[in-house]
Amino acid sequence: MPKPKYHIIVCTNSRPPGHPRGSCGEKGGSDVMMQFYEEMQNLGFFDQVLITGSTCTGPCQIGPMVIVYPEGTWYQKVTPSDVKEIMEEHIGKGKPVERLKVPDNLWG
Amino acid sequence: MPKPKYHIIVCTNSRPPGHPRGSCGEKGGSDVMMQFYEEMQNLGFFDQVLITGSTCTGPCQIGPMVIVYPEGTWYQKVTPSDVKEIMEEHIGKGKPVERLKVPDNLWG
Repeated sequence: MPKPKYHIIVCTNSRPPGHPRGSCGEKGGSDVMMQFYEEMQNLGFFDQVLITGSTCTGPCQIGPMVIVYPEGTWYQKVTPSDVKEIMEEHIGKGKPVERLKVPDNLWG
Repeated sequence: MPKPKYHIIVCTNSRPPGHPRGSCGEKGGSDVMMQFYEEMQNLGFFDQVLITGSTCTGPCQIGPMVIVYPEGTWYQKVTPSDVKEIMEEHIGKGKPVERLKVPDNLWG
């Protein structure tokens, strides 16, 4: 395998229903991951993209979280309908999707 | 939370015993992840390091795999006894551990 140019990490961590922190799994993280796989197929990005599911990344309240390396771009509240844009713009053209980025003031 | 300076990804993917590809889980990936958490505590790196477990990263035969960002350093065959060195040298001093790196010729 070639070394992946991009690594897309999707939080799929689950907690029981009603847990005070919620979870990316509860908010649809697994569906988001599956949509990334589907778009990878559609766009033929197999050789350049690694997609992995992840345990908890921290800011559960704004999940599902997606992190894209090498840029270290953190995306919040990602839905399956956002995935095509991330794949086409960020992965395809190298332009991170500003409207989905975690705002700077989240980081304390 | 502050934005993590380093993100350590440990593959903990499991397959059934005897599966031809093997798995990082079968080779001790979860123990490796737990050791990273322990060293994070020992070294007080809470504010700068995010540690997450991961689904399959690809090169199962040389697992357990560990990937460290922002450098995108891939480590192979990591055991719990290697973790302190990765934390002290790579995370603490910014010097990736050469002896554990995936060799360049793995990438086809």
